[in-house]
Amino acid sequence: MEFFAHNAATGEKLGAYRDATAAEIDAAARAAAAAARAFAGLDPEMRARFLETAADEIVALGDALIQTAHRETGLPVARLEGERGRTTGQLRLFAAVVREGSWVDARIDPALPDRKPLPRPDVRRMLRPIGPVAVFGASNFPLAFSVAGGDTASALAAGNPVVVKAHPAHPGTSDLVASALRSAVQKAGLPVGVFVMVHGASPEVSLALVRHEAIQAVGFTGSIRAGRALWDAAAARPRPIPVFAEMGSINPLIVLPGALRERRDAIAEGLVGSCTLGVGQFCTKPGLVLGLSSPEWDAFARSVADRARAITPGVMLHAGIQASFDRAVRELQGVAWLTDTGARVARVSAADFARQPHLAHEIFGPYTLLVTASSRGELLQLLGALDGQLTATLHGTADELAAAQDLVDVLGRVAGRLVFNGYPTGVEVSHAMHHGGPYPASSDARFTSVGSAAIFRFARPVCYQSCPPALLPPELRDENPLGISRLVDGRATRDPIPPRA
Amino acid sequence: MEFFAHNAATGEKLGAYRDATAAEIDAAARAAAAAARAFAGLDPEMRARFLETAADEIVALGDALIQTAHRETGLPVARLEGERGRTTGQLRLFAAVVREGSWVDARIDPALPDRKPLPRPDVRRMLRPIGPVAVFGASNFPLAFSVAGGDTASALAAGNPVVVKAHPAHPGTSDLVASALRSAVQKAGLPVGVFVMVHGASPEVSLALVRHEAIQAVGFTGSIRAGRALWDAAAARPRPIPVFAEMGSINPLIVLPGALRERRDAIAEGLVGSCTLGVGQFCTKPGLVLGLSSPEWDAFARSVADRARAITPGVMLHAGIQASFDRAVRELQGVAWLTDTGARVARVSAADFARQPHLAHEIFGPYTLLVTASSRGELLQLLGALDGQLTATLHGTADELAAAQDLVDVLGRVAGRLVFNGYPTGVEVSHAMHHGGPYPASSDARFTSVGSAAIFRFARPVCYQSCPPALLPPELRDENPLGISRLVDGRATRDPIPPRA
Repeated sequence: MEFFAHNAATGEKLGAYRDATAAEIDAAARAAAAAARAFAGLDPEMRARFLETAADEIVALGDALIQTAHRETGLPVARLEGERGRTTGQLRLFAAVVREGSWVDARIDPALPDRKPLPRPDVRRMLRPIGPVAVFGASNFPLAFSVAGGDTASALAAGNPVVVKAHPAHPGTSDLVASALRSAVQKAGLPVGVFVMVHGASPEVSLALVRHEAIQAVGFTGSIRAGRALWDAAAARPRPIPVFAEMGSINPLIVLPGALRERRDAIAEGLVGSCTLGVGQFCTKPGLVLGLSSPEWDAFARSVADRARAITPGVMLHAGIQASFDRAVRELQGVAWLTDTGARVARVSAADFARQPHLAHEIFGPYTLLVTASSRGELLQLLGALDGQLTATLHGTADELAAAQDLVDVLGRVAGRLVFNGYPTGVEVSHAMHHGGPYPASSDARFTSVGSAAIFRFARPVCYQSCPPALLPPELRDENPLGISRLVDGRATRDPIPPRA
Repeated sequence: MEFFAHNAATGEKLGAYRDATAAEIDAAARAAAAAARAFAGLDPEMRARFLETAADEIVALGDALIQTAHRETGLPVARLEGERGRTTGQLRLFAAVVREGSWVDARIDPALPDRKPLPRPDVRRMLRPIGPVAVFGASNFPLAFSVAGGDTASALAAGNPVVVKAHPAHPGTSDLVASALRSAVQKAGLPVGVFVMVHGASPEVSLALVRHEAIQAVGFTGSIRAGRALWDAAAARPRPIPVFAEMGSINPLIVLPGALRERRDAIAEGLVGSCTLGVGQFCTKPGLVLGLSSPEWDAFARSVADRARAITPGVMLHAGIQASFDRAVRELQGVAWLTDTGARVARVSAADFARQPHLAHEIFGPYTLLVTASSRGELLQLLGALDGQLTATLHGTADELAAAQDLVDVLGRVAGRLVFNGYPTGVEVSHAMHHGGPYPASSDARFTSVGSAAIFRFARPVCYQSCPPALLPPELRDENPLGISRLVDGRATRDPIPPRA
């Protein structure tokens, strides 16, 4: 099937692409499989340098990358420059993680030859690459969650070849980034299969890739419908593989009464900014704002509405997203609209929200729903009944937060990340970040797609029992030549294993 | 449906049981869900004591437990006493892990208020319980992989209520162990839903439990057919949940020529012992033994056969397993039998093995297959084409192992644990153990079902951004009151976070 890139602002056709054929998908997956062993065997320093070279090559694409992405996505140049920095920053973060080396979770239980009734053998384990990973680019972050985004960076960092299926909304941007990655592969002297990209606008391309026997794991960011289709295909394989799909979230944000009294307009300002950042096309956009019925809450709603009305909506990522947003807003039943221009704000009572499950569905774009609860009990009940969420945010005074353990408990069960007196958009790329949550926020709540812990999705332990020292990977040798943190007899240490008497 | 416990040795009926009804399964899962919050909130020291009390209560069952298990499974008393020690040892190991506390993988990235262009917020995360876990007891370890086995111990250690579906081959043993766990729950003052057990011999009981919306994860040890059925049911849920199924493995064992010359009979002795331990009913039984064509290999085969023939097979776990074993051996095509009594040993060429995929299927019981390769290349090719394995074992002289990187590479891709000059049965319960492997050895190669790392199956990260100190769990507070190892700005340390200026 042929498809086209479009100028998001004008609708002008920018270039023709076509779905990868079955043979091309097969060739891509086989190339990745053929490269797996050599890439897995690369020493950590070389792998770190490869990731840094990939970052350098992306920077070297220069303004052509930014302009292409700007045309294809409608995102402002400044935002795209920031996103490029985030993308190269992720690659460099993973380079640092690989170079430091402790991520392999090395564990050593030395032999206990005199243990009774049976001696204990020497047992050591560490994480090793899982095998070729299929990555699906997201439409809303054409750089940071796409061809060289967090999924690709973490899969490569773990030592796995990657096959990317480019998002059809920014194929030209994808081609440029892919050229940078291929250049890094070449400069590192690695097999070409370490990074391969295919194009496709049909679900069949994605499904064929996920079903390919050479593919060992999947990273995806996008809609629940598409993510679930990949999940189902992977689960039905003769040999199932893990799918890390980051899907949908409405990111509840609760404003307690004291916070409204202290800084009503500041919160309204921050909320509208967060809801309209990137034209509301963030998976962490707060799409559900909850408060307790009161005159202050009514004033807050007016303040939000006034600010939202004044927003001039930007260009959305592509015509399909714009049409979906317009339709979703037009057809939304059972709410009172507070704005009919600018960013869209609606309002509903908690009781009416609970009666209308469709109100809990994500609407991707500059929209949010204010929900008025009549009591804290009703608020807690509503929150506890929500589907899984990427984030939940709580605004309160110091005293209110100190007394908010009930809210923190329920939000901790519903969401992957709790934000206090802030806004959920702007996901920090760091070691402690968790970007994931109970289904359908992500397909496996135990893993993050942002931050250095994302690497754990794409590795599996291999255990060595009574292994001759010369055959052990450096990470597991007595001397600890890499100086990594290891769990020795259950205790974290960077010390070598002392020679036995 | 009614079913019966049987004396494994005599076939005598020991007691009548019946499948849990749909209402009973629902009640069990709801009780677990109702207990989840209180149990998750228990402080680590109290949870550790609860696990230790559970171990004490199992010991307090005394000889009644051993005798009941002996009758129901046919396993010898000494073996069951050892297995009881392993079971209580696992509970105490997890108690130690919980008490030490670092398993929660606490990560702290302190705020950087002066970072440009944007300040970095304070971000902290740690592992929290995933929710009620369904555990399916295995037939072959009525204590260590059953009601209070590794799945239950690790799920409880992570802070999750457990619903066990007892294995129908040892329901009386299961009832006794369940009574010990309930007693521990009561002594700890915990809600009864922290541990619930149901009986069932029909697949419908298992499937209903896996499909129950309150269940958040599944631990299973058993056949590929049953494990895959649970996997499929869990993957098809409206909200899919992870299934950790440890299923089938034939555990290749390779004997290199020099090792044969050095210690042919000792290896034959060790191999036959490993193959017939527990009447060959171990998931790590070496069911595939590979060597290079030579007179020494022929002599080794005779040595194995002589020893195997002299074995008096013990009582198998139940009549169904005995019948399956007898049928599998009787109907096995395309091999030459080296024994027709005692433990069963067959032989085939590597070429014939490759032509007959059914020879790679697990036969549960005292059986192994010797495969003669004509060259090292043929051996490597055969190993690389195997399905995923729990273990792979390599016997060689020091010089042979030093030159065996090719074998280690291919075995590391196929198996979860590599054993050198030893035997795969006897899985050490420790921090570095990995009991799992590529599908179908287990449903998710990234996780172990034995050893302290098994706890990671049943926990998910929760992230706190800009959280007031008083609301943070102790594990994430600046002072590090529990003294655990944490990742601060990406570096492992037990130090507190210094107060900011």
